[in-house]
Amino acid sequence: MGTVRNILFIMTDQQRADYLGAELPALRTPVLDALARDGVRFSRAYCNSPICGSSRMCFYTGRYMSTHGATWNRFPLSVSEWTIGDHLAAAGQRVGLVGKTHMAPDRQGMQRLGLAADDARAGFLAECGFEPWERDDGLWPDGVVPADLPYNRWLNAHGFDGENPWHTWANSAAGPDGEILSGWYLRNVHLPARIPEAFSETAYMTDRAIAFVDDAGATPWCLHLSYIKPHWPYMAPAPYHAMYGPEDVPAVIRGSAERDDPHPVHAAFMQHEDSRTFARDGVRDRVVPPYMGLVSQIDTHLGRLFDHLKKTGAWDNTLIVFTSDHGDYLGDHWLGEKELFHEPSLRIPMIIRDPDPAADAQRGSVRSEFVESVDLLATFRDALGLPGEDGQRLEGRSVLPLLRGPSPADWRDAVFAETDFAPRGARLSLGLAPNEARGIMVRTDRWKFIHWHGFRPQLFDMQEDPQEFHDRGVDPSLARVRDAMRDRLVDHLLLRRTRDTISDTDIEARTDTSARAGFLIGRW
Amino acid sequence: MGTVRNILFIMTDQQRADYLGAELPALRTPVLDALARDGVRFSRAYCNSPICGSSRMCFYTGRYMSTHGATWNRFPLSVSEWTIGDHLAAAGQRVGLVGKTHMAPDRQGMQRLGLAADDARAGFLAECGFEPWERDDGLWPDGVVPADLPYNRWLNAHGFDGENPWHTWANSAAGPDGEILSGWYLRNVHLPARIPEAFSETAYMTDRAIAFVDDAGATPWCLHLSYIKPHWPYMAPAPYHAMYGPEDVPAVIRGSAERDDPHPVHAAFMQHEDSRTFARDGVRDRVVPPYMGLVSQIDTHLGRLFDHLKKTGAWDNTLIVFTSDHGDYLGDHWLGEKELFHEPSLRIPMIIRDPDPAADAQRGSVRSEFVESVDLLATFRDALGLPGEDGQRLEGRSVLPLLRGPSPADWRDAVFAETDFAPRGARLSLGLAPNEARGIMVRTDRWKFIHWHGFRPQLFDMQEDPQEFHDRGVDPSLARVRDAMRDRLVDHLLLRRTRDTISDTDIEARTDTSARAGFLIGRW
Repeated sequence: MGTVRNILFIMTDQQRADYLGAELPALRTPVLDALARDGVRFSRAYCNSPICGSSRMCFYTGRYMSTHGATWNRFPLSVSEWTIGDHLAAAGQRVGLVGKTHMAPDRQGMQRLGLAADDARAGFLAECGFEPWERDDGLWPDGVVPADLPYNRWLNAHGFDGENPWHTWANSAAGPDGEILSGWYLRNVHLPARIPEAFSETAYMTDRAIAFVDDAGATPWCLHLSYIKPHWPYMAPAPYHAMYGPEDVPAVIRGSAERDDPHPVHAAFMQHEDSRTFARDGVRDRVVPPYMGLVSQIDTHLGRLFDHLKKTGAWDNTLIVFTSDHGDYLGDHWLGEKELFHEPSLRIPMIIRDPDPAADAQRGSVRSEFVESVDLLATFRDALGLPGEDGQRLEGRSVLPLLRGPSPADWRDAVFAETDFAPRGARLSLGLAPNEARGIMVRTDRWKFIHWHGFRPQLFDMQEDPQEFHDRGVDPSLARVRDAMRDRLVDHLLLRRTRDTISDTDIEARTDTSARAGFLIGRW
Repeated sequence: MGTVRNILFIMTDQQRADYLGAELPALRTPVLDALARDGVRFSRAYCNSPICGSSRMCFYTGRYMSTHGATWNRFPLSVSEWTIGDHLAAAGQRVGLVGKTHMAPDRQGMQRLGLAADDARAGFLAECGFEPWERDDGLWPDGVVPADLPYNRWLNAHGFDGENPWHTWANSAAGPDGEILSGWYLRNVHLPARIPEAFSETAYMTDRAIAFVDDAGATPWCLHLSYIKPHWPYMAPAPYHAMYGPEDVPAVIRGSAERDDPHPVHAAFMQHEDSRTFARDGVRDRVVPPYMGLVSQIDTHLGRLFDHLKKTGAWDNTLIVFTSDHGDYLGDHWLGEKELFHEPSLRIPMIIRDPDPAADAQRGSVRSEFVESVDLLATFRDALGLPGEDGQRLEGRSVLPLLRGPSPADWRDAVFAETDFAPRGARLSLGLAPNEARGIMVRTDRWKFIHWHGFRPQLFDMQEDPQEFHDRGVDPSLARVRDAMRDRLVDHLLLRRTRDTISDTDIEARTDTSARAGFLIGRW
């Protein structure tokens, strides 16, 4: 074991925190279990925005959703936002990407600043600061897929035909007469993908990650290995499609009270097609087993990658993070997908293995401190020995102390998250303008409070009602609780690091210096 | 009278709303009175941040302080912020500056994006989108003044000697033995400036404005004429230094309760040198008369400028705005300077004259609708016939409807402001870190509520206690009021236009389109 030289930042997509072997015994994730024994698992890690694009930008910028401003999938990230590549450049890391970022470049901002699209700087900005060793956002309907998608061309080269084998081979099954049964339809996902497992996306991306590590050689690296699965299409290759059955599916988390008298926003989301489908009998039994299988498949391939690191020696100086961008309702709370603030949507897996001997005493521990997506970038800087970036941009906090010792006395006692559902049907059914579909949540040990623009708040007692069935948002006896939570929200929003063109050190140096510079303010 | 072709955007510095002839009869401002008779005066106009730099950036970006992020004087404005030059470019305006902006360029951001300092784009960014016809930030201690300050070199050319005649001639008086008595010391400001009035800053900047108008000729223009006065040094040239006397000074606005049991932040500001000086007997009688004189001087020169516009015909198609960046406590509330949220600091003069015949019915009216700094940029776009910028960046609202007709039913019922006193001594005495010196205010018709990070809130009943002597911030009977105000603050902060890389129209076009694009989410 040595100090941290490389970072392996693994993200799955749409994997709930409770879909790890450690929380769901029926689910087999031996590699991740071993990683947790060799590191720390955080049982209360939360994403800061429960949807792919905006959540990922929180990870990649270290800033909350309404700070970085890219509030939904493929809403461009402003050219002025510093991303992981900016932050780690000073450490000389080669910052590579394999898989998905869901980042859209700010072409308007680049054009305004005169940055030509073929300029290297524009390329850096357009790739979110990553070297796109293998960029693949992973969701490719036939009308959307680019002609040069490397995974598709690789499949073609290996004999899997068609213009979009991502769809027709990797995410479709074969019917009894050989017809293609698309994984876009949930009714088909109990069947095996047409593709042999070794040619699946998860296998391919792992191969590409191994190739990146080999290519980096002696150069320190930070690799973001970003799997698209277990995100829909929920189609797993054999044998993972059949690894689990209905008997392995956890009980659904939903109450009649929340269905019969829902909050208006919750009610609007219940009307989305995904929610209505998951509310039907039998759908969970059809979908959750392959979802579990896809997690087990990733676990297997991570074993392959970890073996490679061990073989090459990188294992001993690589910080490994395993997390996901958000969860998946899978029918809980009468919902599909994500975007709202219940635990199945918001809580994420988070395992961090620190190779430094200073972390030895904590290996295998499960820690319940609140951890957020925005913390990772500060953690990476810290682990690489970079100086703190001095309050200029990062809104998260390094979790390195939690990997190596007891909880700092001033560790946070709350987590925050935001949602912007402007592009969803729920906005239309609620009659909201594009700037009005907003909610923000704070959760403490005891309470989860949600402020909605235009609607009453929600409040859940996480001790008495951990499953969040009973919304106390208008309970008169809890007015003081809500008031205290609103106070936290104002404070949280007010202290955002939007003042990002100057550091705290610069401000310290300027404080109370007017008179010294000759500005005699109010001197008699 | 015609439709709007040009914009004359006049700003004074540190002029309280109640230091206009219309509100303070002893103060003679005949030109501004006439402008108000020919236009509309807003009696409840507020700046969104009561200090020069951050307030100006609210005007120039149309965004609230913690959105644009330049939260104090000369804290750089991010390269990604669109300013007045960006917004009016589409109208073909020549956007010129005469005087002060207090803007600092984001050199770090430019460097990161590879913009060379001598690049035209970098120049545009560094000048806040203005053509710097005459940029002069107006406060020049001897150790700070640049060698090539045009006003100084012009004074030299006219026989006023020295390296910094801004100080030694324009902002100093002569003692009985010819010694120089600096205007940096309040004890001297009853004396006339050494400079003859025609060579004062106000006269010079007006000359420069006239020259810009002449230079623009037939090109439509937007001129920001930004006077440094009546900001300190409070030194007026003759005869304005003696135009008013102690008998003209309004009664001080301060109560014993607020001195004896102040809010901690208020208490810390009372310890600043400017506050302690203004609390001394006789200081207001020394300072307020020249402050009034400086306002009357500006009024006179505006008369000269307006005559020039009339002579050249521009008067008939020029929208004229007269405002200020914030107020000045002048000893009210036991304070000097600004930065806190009492009315003397926060409320600003606002007169707008619209040449369009559609505004005829409103001429001479005094309107009490809430208006904010952030509104002007939207107003300019509207007046020039530019399309609305579609919810992408602007957080203000065009006041054109208020210039031309009755109040829209959905006009705002509250104003908001923020302060960041990180660089002030008060932060140190309060023991706050650089990111903690923050407050945010909301005022409605009835209430003014202030949330402070780290301290109890403040609440004033603006109907029962319009002078803000009685802080009800912890009054148990008003808990519900405070809760409602906090709710407004969360909403206000949540709906900020930080999602500024995409327009509402683009979002509308994307809403609920996943299935159409082939993303079949949750389809059975």
